Amino acid sequence: MTTAEPRRADTGLLSPGWADTGADDLLDDQACVRAMLAVEVALARAQAAAGVIPAAHADAIATAAGTARLDIDKLVAGVRATANPVVVFVSEFTSAVADVDPAAAESVHRGSTSQDVLDSALMVLTAATLRRVLGDLRRTATALDAMAGKYRTTPMAGRTLTQHAVPITFGLKAATWLQLVLDAVERVERVLADGLPASLGGAAGTLAAYQEYARLAGADAVDPLALAGPFAAELGLTEPLVPWHSVRTPMADVAAVLSFVTGALGRVAVDVEVLTRTEIGEVSEASAEGRGASSAMPQKRNPVFATMIATAARQVPAYTLVLHQSMVVEDERSGGGWHAEWQPLRDSLRLTAGAARNAVDLTEGLTAFPERMADNLALTGGAVVSERTNAVLAPRVGKRAAKALLATASATAAETGRPLPTVLVELAERDGHELDSDELTELLRPADYTGTAEVLVDRVRDRWRTLSRA
Amino acid sequence: MTTAEPRRADTGLLSPGWADTGADDLLDDQACVRAMLAVEVALARAQAAAGVIPAAHADAIATAAGTARLDIDKLVAGVRATANPVVVFVSEFTSAVADVDPAAAESVHRGSTSQDVLDSALMVLTAATLRRVLGDLRRTATALDAMAGKYRTTPMAGRTLTQHAVPITFGLKAATWLQLVLDAVERVERVLADGLPASLGGAAGTLAAYQEYARLAGADAVDPLALAGPFAAELGLTEPLVPWHSVRTPMADVAAVLSFVTGALGRVAVDVEVLTRTEIGEVSEASAEGRGASSAMPQKRNPVFATMIATAARQVPAYTLVLHQSMVVEDERSGGGWHAEWQPLRDSLRLTAGAARNAVDLTEGLTAFPERMADNLALTGGAVVSERTNAVLAPRVGKRAAKALLATASATAAETGRPLPTVLVELAERDGHELDSDELTELLRPADYTGTAEVLVDRVRDRWRTLSRA
Amino acid sequence: MTTAEPRRADTGLLSPGWADTGADDLLDDQACVRAMLAVEVALARAQAAAGVIPAAHADAIATAAGTARLDIDKLVAGVRATANPVVVFVSEFTSAVADVDPAAAESVHRGSTSQDVLDSALMVLTAATLRRVLGDLRRTATALDAMAGKYRTTPMAGRTLTQHAVPITFGLKAATWLQLVLDAVERVERVLADGLPASLGGAAGTLAAYQEYARLAGADAVDPLALAGPFAAELGLTEPLVPWHSVRTPMADVAAVLSFVTGALGRVAVDVEVLTRTEIGEVSEASAEGRGASSAMPQKRNPVFATMIATAARQVPAYTLVLHQSMVVEDERSGGGWHAEWQPLRDSLRLTAGAARNAVDLTEGLTAFPERMADNLALTGGAVVSERTNAVLAPRVGKRAAKALLATASATAAETGRPLPTVLVELAERDGHELDSDELTELLRPADYTGTAEVLVDRVRDRWRTLSRA
Amino acid sequence: MTTAEPRRADTGLLSPGWADTGADDLLDDQACVRAMLAVEVALARAQAAAGVIPAAHADAIATAAGTARLDIDKLVAGVRATANPVVVFVSEFTSAVADVDPAAAESVHRGSTSQDVLDSALMVLTAATLRRVLGDLRRTATALDAMAGKYRTTPMAGRTLTQHAVPITFGLKAATWLQLVLDAVERVERVLADGLPASLGGAAGTLAAYQEYARLAGADAVDPLALAGPFAAELGLTEPLVPWHSVRTPMADVAAVLSFVTGALGRVAVDVEVLTRTEIGEVSEASAEGRGASSAMPQKRNPVFATMIATAARQVPAYTLVLHQSMVVEDERSGGGWHAEWQPLRDSLRLTAGAARNAVDLTEGLTAFPERMADNLALTGGAVVSERTNAVLAPRVGKRAAKALLATASATAAETGRPLPTVLVELAERDGHELDSDELTELLRPADYTGTAEVLVDRVRDRWRTLSRA
Repeated sequence: MTTAEPRRADTGLLSPGWADTGADDLLDDQACVRAMLAVEVALARAQAAAGVIPAAHADAIATAAGTARLDIDKLVAGVRATANPVVVFVSEFTSAVADVDPAAAESVHRGSTSQDVLDSALMVLTAATLRRVLGDLRRTATALDAMAGKYRTTPMAGRTLTQHAVPITFGLKAATWLQLVLDAVERVERVLADGLPASLGGAAGTLAAYQEYARLAGADAVDPLALAGPFAAELGLTEPLVPWHSVRTPMADVAAVLSFVTGALGRVAVDVEVLTRTEIGEVSEASAEGRGASSAMPQKRNPVFATMIATAARQVPAYTLVLHQSMVVEDERSGGGWHAEWQPLRDSLRLTAGAARNAVDLTEGLTAFPERMADNLALTGGAVVSERTNAVLAPRVGKRAAKALLATASATAAETGRPLPTVLVELAERDGHELDSDELTELLRPADYTGTAEVLVDRVRDRWRTLSRA
Repeated sequence: MTTAEPRRADTGLLSPGWADTGADDLLDDQACVRAMLAVEVALARAQAAAGVIPAAHADAIATAAGTARLDIDKLVAGVRATANPVVVFVSEFTSAVADVDPAAAESVHRGSTSQDVLDSALMVLTAATLRRVLGDLRRTATALDAMAGKYRTTPMAGRTLTQHAVPITFGLKAATWLQLVLDAVERVERVLADGLPASLGGAAGTLAAYQEYARLAGADAVDPLALAGPFAAELGLTEPLVPWHSVRTPMADVAAVLSFVTGALGRVAVDVEVLTRTEIGEVSEASAEGRGASSAMPQKRNPVFATMIATAARQVPAYTLVLHQSMVVEDERSGGGWHAEWQPLRDSLRLTAGAARNAVDLTEGLTAFPERMADNLALTGGAVVSERTNAVLAPRVGKRAAKALLATASATAAETGRPLPTVLVELAERDGHELDSDELTELLRPADYTGTAEVLVDRVRDRWRTLSRA
Repeated sequence: MTTAEPRRADTGLLSPGWADTGADDLLDDQACVRAMLAVEVALARAQAAAGVIPAAHADAIATAAGTARLDIDKLVAGVRATANPVVVFVSEFTSAVADVDPAAAESVHRGSTSQDVLDSALMVLTAATLRRVLGDLRRTATALDAMAGKYRTTPMAGRTLTQHAVPITFGLKAATWLQLVLDAVERVERVLADGLPASLGGAAGTLAAYQEYARLAGADAVDPLALAGPFAAELGLTEPLVPWHSVRTPMADVAAVLSFVTGALGRVAVDVEVLTRTEIGEVSEASAEGRGASSAMPQKRNPVFATMIATAARQVPAYTLVLHQSMVVEDERSGGGWHAEWQPLRDSLRLTAGAARNAVDLTEGLTAFPERMADNLALTGGAVVSERTNAVLAPRVGKRAAKALLATASATAAETGRPLPTVLVELAERDGHELDSDELTELLRPADYTGTAEVLVDRVRDRWRTLSRA
Repeated sequence: MTTAEPRRADTGLLSPGWADTGADDLLDDQACVRAMLAVEVALARAQAAAGVIPAAHADAIATAAGTARLDIDKLVAGVRATANPVVVFVSEFTSAVADVDPAAAESVHRGSTSQDVLDSALMVLTAATLRRVLGDLRRTATALDAMAGKYRTTPMAGRTLTQHAVPITFGLKAATWLQLVLDAVERVERVLADGLPASLGGAAGTLAAYQEYARLAGADAVDPLALAGPFAAELGLTEPLVPWHSVRTPMADVAAVLSFVTGALGRVAVDVEVLTRTEIGEVSEASAEGRGASSAMPQKRNPVFATMIATAARQVPAYTLVLHQSMVVEDERSGGGWHAEWQPLRDSLRLTAGAARNAVDLTEGLTAFPERMADNLALTGGAVVSERTNAVLAPRVGKRAAKALLATASATAAETGRPLPTVLVELAERDGHELDSDELTELLRPADYTGTAEVLVDRVRDRWRTLSRA
C-alpha cells in the first residue's frame, strides 16, 4: 500500500466500540488542542478583567487561538520530552501569539502550569461528551418507553440461569432496560449538575504565581482566587473550592459514571444477543444494506449494535479502574498517576459516546416477534408455571410433597411428551391425592401468570415521564 | 501444628487491609446468616400484616430466627449444590421453624426466591458497613481539620513529579487530604440517603408467586407490591421502584463509592509514606508497643497504618471492576454475573471498613515535624521559589531570557554550593542586566511564597464545619 | 441466631467459585500457619546442617512446629500491629519452642525476615494448589477427550455472533474445549517445572544477617547463599538465583497462569450455558438429588457447575491485575505493594482450584443430545450452508450476484417457509440463471458440510495422547 | 484553530506512555491495513501453490496490495456497519484487484472469513512489536549490566516500607533491576519462540469453504489444512494445530507478557523516582535541552522517562485483564468478546513498546551519585546496621533484651544526636552488661555490612552474559 497521507495513528479501525459514531470528533487530537487553546483564552480574559494583563493582550491571545495552526506532530514530540503536551503547546502557542502581537506573547499562560491547562481542557472535553451521551440516552429511553408500552402484556419466558423460569412480558423486559437507562440518565445529569470543575492551582496548588503576577501588575484585587470564577464560567465549567491537582474527585466521579452508562447499555446488549439467537429469535436488530453482513456467509444478519455495545461494556470498567487507582497519588502532582489518567479518560469517553449512539440505533430499530415469544413459552409444556401449580398444590398435599410431585411430573412430561396436567393428575392419584385436570390446565396457562408485570411497566414509564419533563 | 478448632477458612491472616479492624465482624459468615434470617423474618411479618400468612406463623418464624443454630458447613455445601447459599439455608431454616411450630414451617420463604433473600441480606450488610465507614471518615475528618488548622501557615516544600516545586504549607496538604475525605463523606452519605433497596421480585421479577399466595390466602389486598414497603422498612432498607434482579444499580453505586473511599484514603496514605521516608522525616505515625515493628530490625518504625490503607486502595478498584462488569447480565437472572458479585462486594466492604478504621488511627496519631519541613525547604537554596523570581525577572529581561537565566543559575548554585542570589546577580550582569541582590534574597525566601495556601485551608475547614453540622 | 462457635470470618458462604470444593482446605488460615511453620523448620534444618545453629535446636524447632497450637486470633491481631502476620507468629512460635527447649528458642528465625517466611510459605501453598489443579485439569481433559471422540462426526450448528453460521461437529466443539484445557495443562506444568522459588534474602536482600550469624557461630562455611539450596529443597521449592523481595516474577507468573486456567475453563462454561438454554437444549449437566435446584421452581435444573466456573472466570483476572501491578514496587520491600499480593493470590488460587474441580464434575457428567443438535441445525432450512452454495454459485453467476441471490433467497425462504432450494431456483431463473434443484438440495445438506472437523478432532486428541503420556 | 488536515483522531497527544517513541508507527491504522493486505496476499499465494486459484490471480492480488490506496475513513465506516473492519476492507481491496485484473478479483479472500484476516494481521503486528521490544530490553539490560558492575561495591541504604533497613550496594539494586529485565527478555523470547500463530479456520473453524473452493477448483490436494503451513510461513507466523477463533491462547499469552514487561520496567521506574527525590538525590536522569522541563518552574528537572514508564505500567495490566477475560467467549465466534480484544491489544503493545524505548533512554542516561548515597546511609547514625549489632548482642544479653536495648538506644540517639555506640554502652551498663565501644563502632560501619551483595551482582551479570550470547 502506498500512501501520501499524514500520520493518523488511530482513527478507530480497531475500535468497534466507537468507530464512526462521531465520538472521535469530540475527542480527537484537534479537539484536545482546541480545548487547550480555549483554556489559555479563558485564563487571559479572566486576567485581563482583573487587570493582571492588558485587555489588548487577551484580545491578541483570543485572535491567535482562532487562527493558529499548531503542528500536532511537534506537540506529540513534546509529550515525550516533558511527559505532557502542554509545555511545547505553550511554547508554540506563544509564538503564534507573537505573530499577532509580540507584546501579548508575554501574557500567555501567565502564572499557569501544565496541569491547570490540561485538566481544564479535559473537563471541557468531558462536558461536551457527556452532554452528547445524555442526549443519546434520552433518545434510547424514548425508544424503550415505546417498546415497554407496546408490549406491556405480551407474554414471554422469563429466564434465569439460562433456563425458563416463569413467564414475564416483553414489556417488562423493556421496562427493566429502561429503568437502567434512566438510572444512567440520572447519574450523567447529576455529574453535570454537580459541575465539572476548571483547574486553577498554579505550580503546586497555592496559586502563588497567579498572585505574584497580579501583584507585579499592581492589579486592584490581587486575590488570584477571584480569577477562578470567570475563568471557569468562560469554559462552561464550575469553580472548584480548592485546586484539585492531587484531589482527583472529578476524574473518579466521571469514571464511575462512564462505567455505569456502558454497564447499563451492556445489559441491554447482551439481553438482545440472547433473544436474537437463531433458536430463540424473539427480537432482531434493524436490517439495512450491508449492516451486520458477514464476509463469508450471505444469509447472516449479525446483531452488530448489540455486539459493539457489549464490546464497550467489557472495556470501560478497566479504564475506570485505572482512573480510580489514579486517585492514589503522592505529592502535589504525581509522577505517573496523573499521566495515566488522560488516555483512559479519552478512551472511556469515546467508548461511552459510541455505546450511547449505538444504543439509539439498537433500540429505535429493534423488532420484536411476539409469536416466537409465545412459541418459546410453550416449549416446556407448562413447566414454566410449575411455580404457580406448586403454590396451589402445597396447601393440599404439603410443601415438600408438592415440590417433589412437580419435579417428577415435569421430568416425565418432558420425556414422554405427554401433557403436564395429565401426568400430574396420574402421579397425584398414585399418592392418594385427587387433582382436577381442568383446574390444572387453567393454572398452567403461562400468559395468565405474569404477576405484576404490567404495573411494573407502568411504574418505569411514569418515572420516564417525570424525568423527561425535567 | 495440631488443632481442635473447627474450620475457619479465612479470618484475615493474609488481609492486612482489614485484619483486626472489626470489619470482619460486620461481614463474616455468621453476619451473613443473621442477615438472611432477618430477611425471612421481615418477609413473614410483611406477609402476616397483609393477611397472606397467619400472624402466629410470623411469630414462630421470628422466634426460630432468634434461636436457630444453623450449621454453616452445611450451608457452604449447599452453595456448591445449587450455586447459592439460600436454597439449603431455606431448607435448614424451615426445619428450625418446624421445631418451633410445624404449621409455621409452611409459611417460610413464601413465594420468595433465592435472589430476594440474598440481595436483601447483602444490602443489610452493606448499610451497616457504610454506616461504620461514615463514622470513621468523620473521625478522620475531625483529625485532619485540626491538623490543617494547626499547621495552616507551616511552610513545607510542594513537590511535583518527586521534585521540589514551590512552597506550600503543611496545613494546605492536610486540607487537600481533608477535601478528599469530605468528598468521600458526601458520597457515602449520598448512597445511604438515596437508600439501599430491599429485593422483592420473586422468581423472575414479576412477584407472581407472592401474588399467587396472596390470592390463595384470600388476602384482602392481593397486590404483592404492597409488601415491599413494610418488608424494606423492617430491614432498614428502601422500597425499590421495580425488582432489581437484573438491574444492578445498587451494586454498581456501592462499588463506585467503595473505590472512591479507599482511593481518597489511599492518597493520604501514600503521601504519608513519602513524608515518612528516612531522608524526608516530616511526619511519623504514632508509635506504640510493637506497632510497626520489624521481625529483624530493632530500630525500625514502619508506617503500618499507611501501608495497610495503601494495600486496600490497590485492591478495591479491582473488585469494583468485577461489580461494574456484573451489571452486564443476560436474562432475568444471570448464570455467573450475579454470583460473581457476592465475594467482591464482601471483600471491598471489608477493605473499605478496614481502611477507614486505619485512617482514624493514622490521622489521630500523626506527628508533624515543622523543623524538618523547614530544613528540607531550604535544601535547594532558593531554587524552590525560582518561579517567583522568574515572574519578577521576566518583565525586566524578557520571558524566555528570565527562564534561561534561572535554569542556569539554579544549576550553577547547586553545583558550586554558592548562594543563588549571588549567582543570579553575576550571571545577569554578564548579560547586561542589573539585579538587586537584596531584593533577590527577599524574593527567594520560601516561607513568603505560599500564595493562597491559608485561604484554601480555611475554605476546606469551613466546608467541614458545614458538613459536620449536617 | 445464637452461636457458640469461634469466629470463622469466611468459609466460602458467598464464594460459589470455590465453596465446598476442598480448595479452602489447601489455603485456609491453618494451612497458612502450617506453611509458615514448615518454613521455620526448613530454615533451622538448613542452618543446623551448616553449623549455624545446634542440631538439637533444629530438632526442638521441628518438634515444636508439630505440636504448637498457635492462636490464630492473636496472629490476626498481629497483622494489624505490624502489617504482616509473621512478626507475632515468630514471637508466638518462639514461645512454643521455648516450651520444648528454652535454648532452642534463641535459634528460631535466625537472621531471617518476615518476607522470607511469608513468601516461602505462599509458594508452598501455591505449589500444593497448582498440583491439585493439574490433576483436575488432566481429569477434565480425559473427559473431554472421550467426548470429542464419541461425537467426532455428530453435526451441530456452528454459531458466530449468536447466529447459525455453518455446521461443525459436537466433537470439534469438545476438541476446542480440550485444546484450551491442554494449553492450561501445559502452562501449569511449565510454571511448576520452572520451579516456585523459596525466599531467602534477609532484611534487604543481601542475606547479611544470615551471614552474620554464621560468622558468629564460627560456621565452617559462612556463605549464607549455601543455605538456599537445602532450605528450598526441604520445602519442595527451587533455589532462587537472587532474592526476589522486589523482583516479583514468581507472583506474576503464577497470576498469569491462574487467569489462563480460569479463562480456559470459563470458555467451556459459557459455551455449556448457551447449549443448555431451554430453546437450544443440546447438552445438560449431570443431575443429582438437590443439584441445580431452585428455591422457587420445582421443574428447574440449573447448569450450576457452568455457573460456578463462569463466576470464577469473571473474578480471577481482576486478582491477576492486582498481582501484576504489584510488580511495580519501590525500595527493597514496598509499603503496600507486597502486602496487596497475599489475599488476591489466595483468592485466585482458591477460585482456580474450585473451577478445576467443578470442571471435572461438569465434563464427566455432561450429557449431549445429538437429536436436538440435528433439529436445531435444520432450523434455517439450509441457510446454514449457504456459504457452500455461494461457493458453488459464484463461478456460475459471479461473486457478488451469488451473494445477493443467496441473501434474498434465505430471507424469502425464512419468511414464506418454502424450501430454500426451490426459492433459489426460482430467483435464479428470474435473473436468467438455470440451477439444478437436486444439486442444490444436495449442497444444502448440513451434515455434509463439516469441512475438516474430524481431522481437527483427531489432532487435538493426539496432542492429549502425547501430553498424557508425559 | 483552523486546520486543513485530514482527521487524525489520536496520534498520542494524551499518551505519554508511547508518544513519539516510534511505537505508533508499528501499530497505526496504516500498519493495520498493510498487515491485512499481507494476509490476503499470503492466502492467495498459498492457494495458488495448491492449485485452488490461478497463479496469475495471486500475482495480481500481490500487485494490487502493493499499490492500492485504501480509504481508511471508508474502512472505519465499515467497522460500524459490520462490527469489524474486514468486510469493507475485502470489498475495497477486491475493487483494487479488479483494477489490476478483473478475473483475479474473484479469487480474493477465497473461502476466508473476517476473523482469519484480522487475527492473522494482529499477530503480524504483535510479532513486529515484540521484536522491537526485545531489542530495547536487551539494550536496557546492557546498560543495567554496566551499572551493576560499576557500582558493585558502592554502599547505599536498603529501604523497606520507606525506612532505612540495612545497607545494600547500588550495584545490587541495579542487579535486581537487571534480573527483572532478564526475566522479561526470557518471557518475550519464549512467546516468540513458541510462535505466534496465523489464523486459518473459515467461517466456524472447520475450514469448510477453503475445502469447498479447493474441491471446485479440482485442486490435486483438497486438504485445506495443507494451506496453513505456507500461509503462516509467508507471514512469519506459525501454523496452528487447530483454528483458534474461540481458543484465545495466543492473545492471553501475549497479554500476560506485556503486563510482565511493563511491570518489570515499572519497578525500575518507581525506584528511580524514589532515588531522584530532592531529599534523596542518589540518581538523576540524563538531562537534555528541554527534557523534563516544567511550564512554570525554570529550575525543575523532572524524571520524565521514569514517569512515562510508570504511567504505562499503571495501564497495561488493565488491558491484560480485558484480554484475559476475552478468553471466556461463547460459540464459534463471540458477539463482543473477540471485538473487545483488538484495541486493548494495540494499546498495550504501544505502551509496552513505548516503555521499552523509554527504558533504554532511562538506563543509558542514568547518573548515580555515590556521595549522596554515602551521606544518606549515615543519616541514622548507625541504626541502619542495628540488625547486625543485634545479632552480636543477642548471645550476650539474650535475644529479647538485645532487641529492646537497640530499639531504645536508636530512639535515644536519634533524639539527642549523640553517637549510637556511646548510648548503647551506657544503656547496657545500666542493665549490667559491659560492651566495648570500639567494637560497636566497628560493627556499626554500614559499608561493612552489605552481606552477599557483590556475589549476587555477579550472579545476575553472569546470567546476562549467558543470555546475551544466546
